[in-house]
Amino acid sequence: MKIGLIGSGGVGRALIGLIGERDDVELIFVLNSRSGVGDQSGLDPKKLYEFLGGNRDLEAYEKVGFGVWKFDEILQAFKVDLLVEATPTNKRTGEPATSSIRLALENGVHVVTANKGPVILHYRGLKELADRNGLGFGIGATAGAALPTISAGENDLLGSRLLRIRGVLNGTTNYILHLMETEVMSYQAALQKAQEEGIAETDPSQDVEGWDTAIKMTIIANALAGTDLALEDAEVVGITHLTIEDIRSAKDRNKRYKLLGELDLDAENPRVLVKPVKVSGEDIFYGVQGKNKGIQYITDNLGEVTILGGASDVRGAAAAIIRDILQIKKNF
Amino acid sequence: MKIGLIGSGGVGRALIGLIGERDDVELIFVLNSRSGVGDQSGLDPKKLYEFLGGNRDLEAYEKVGFGVWKFDEILQAFKVDLLVEATPTNKRTGEPATSSIRLALENGVHVVTANKGPVILHYRGLKELADRNGLGFGIGATAGAALPTISAGENDLLGSRLLRIRGVLNGTTNYILHLMETEVMSYQAALQKAQEEGIAETDPSQDVEGWDTAIKMTIIANALAGTDLALEDAEVVGITHLTIEDIRSAKDRNKRYKLLGELDLDAENPRVLVKPVKVSGEDIFYGVQGKNKGIQYITDNLGEVTILGGASDVRGAAAAIIRDILQIKKNF
Repeated sequence: MKIGLIGSGGVGRALIGLIGERDDVELIFVLNSRSGVGDQSGLDPKKLYEFLGGNRDLEAYEKVGFGVWKFDEILQAFKVDLLVEATPTNKRTGEPATSSIRLALENGVHVVTANKGPVILHYRGLKELADRNGLGFGIGATAGAALPTISAGENDLLGSRLLRIRGVLNGTTNYILHLMETEVMSYQAALQKAQEEGIAETDPSQDVEGWDTAIKMTIIANALAGTDLALEDAEVVGITHLTIEDIRSAKDRNKRYKLLGELDLDAENPRVLVKPVKVSGEDIFYGVQGKNKGIQYITDNLGEVTILGGASDVRGAAAAIIRDILQIKKNF
Repeated sequence: MKIGLIGSGGVGRALIGLIGERDDVELIFVLNSRSGVGDQSGLDPKKLYEFLGGNRDLEAYEKVGFGVWKFDEILQAFKVDLLVEATPTNKRTGEPATSSIRLALENGVHVVTANKGPVILHYRGLKELADRNGLGFGIGATAGAALPTISAGENDLLGSRLLRIRGVLNGTTNYILHLMETEVMSYQAALQKAQEEGIAETDPSQDVEGWDTAIKMTIIANALAGTDLALEDAEVVGITHLTIEDIRSAKDRNKRYKLLGELDLDAENPRVLVKPVKVSGEDIFYGVQGKNKGIQYITDNLGEVTILGGASDVRGAAAAIIRDILQIKKNF
């Protein structure tokens, strides 16, 4: 399968590394915001992976690098079966990713994306475009990455109806809450430690205010339950107001705070709710500690199916893209 | 999709019930050890479900029941796309299920089975026969039923390599251990209570001596990791020797016994090990209580992916069969 990639950051580079370990996918072009590299007879992913470790200017790569590009011309110049879109997320406009994805789907190219912007803003339309053209649109990397939320929902629950979804989907907040409990730290101190360890971002607001969880819950619901929810429909409370006393008083009752996303699909107006919830030892999420994540699907016929996954790093996110590529290879 | 079914016991009847709720699968024949019923234009699953609630002699069903049958003649008389084999398990011979499955696959009919016998004894050969004829061979219901062990391994881990497998796969023993801990009961008293509640069987040896776990681990490994392990290769210790003192002393150290199946695929001679293991609160299986089950896949690229599922009943087992049917419908 011939692959083109937009985005040569951490996840993009890790993906190139994983492609180098396989012989069933072939890398044809890689683009970033400034430059690109392409070879219809196949790039050497191992060599390119090394190159990107020290240099992001693809124009300088071997004899096949080039400067500023236009995506419609790239799609003419290089024939690929599948586009991987892995540029940074813009949650307000979804651009330039949405335009690239649309152009690929209009030109008969499957798409796999790790970019939450186009998926939270335009999932329904892009999925319909893909379906109309008999193409795959893989979004697993946008909703849990290494944790197979979408794959499990699409495959493992086949034939059962989703009634409710519960998720602990943000590793950063789970880690901060873990520190607050186990090391008796204030929210600010725990956040700072998580930032020093490279787990929380410099601007952590998306995570700690609950929006990352809300985005993932919305994406999962729209992909699996046929809803057409927007992020604005969600009711979101983060963890920034929690005090050491809150955590201690929960612990005294053998409970633990988790930033939980919930969605009752049988409600009159299904709505994603995100808030810190005290869970007891009987709750499946009680033991999901540290940077770990999990999703629970409550179904009519299969009962409760819960998937727990390890912390996501760029390798896990890249492996989630590979999974989507191989599922499209298998299903189309 | 036109379906034939062998086996009209609890799971078979529940499957007929679920087929009655769908319009994408059509029931053509149902057979049991004494009699059968068939209609090429489709049986009424709702009516048949009701009938089987009171009467197992299918010869008496409407005008389309018949007596003793031969399977090769059935395959001539009724055209189906897929056979569901759901007769009782015989783990020594795998018969008559293995012969029925082979005959179906030789005649271009997909197979889904809930019968552990043919799968533990002949998986490799039957899978190769299915592959050669471009057919599906679904075995999810034999290895966890509602818990999607096989589906998750085949779909959610695509592109990653399995390194180790750990599983708490037997609900009955998990429930007995739960009773021993929470109600401070002896093994014998807990077993008796589980039997009274219809959770443990009259002859509980397959469960409590660990063989059910060993069978599931072996099936999962052979299906997902390309091994060709036999049940005799497994090293199996059950829970019958555990005392109240064992359980209490574990609890004093905040640990809990689980009947754990383990397989290290990177070992020189990979071998299924089943034994009661004391797990701490840090272990993902610590919180898998009561009749619940779980499987953990340790992979190279996706890290650890754990699937936890509710207790299996006949409806869950039937839903697992439906899942396999729909996956074959999707993939072939």
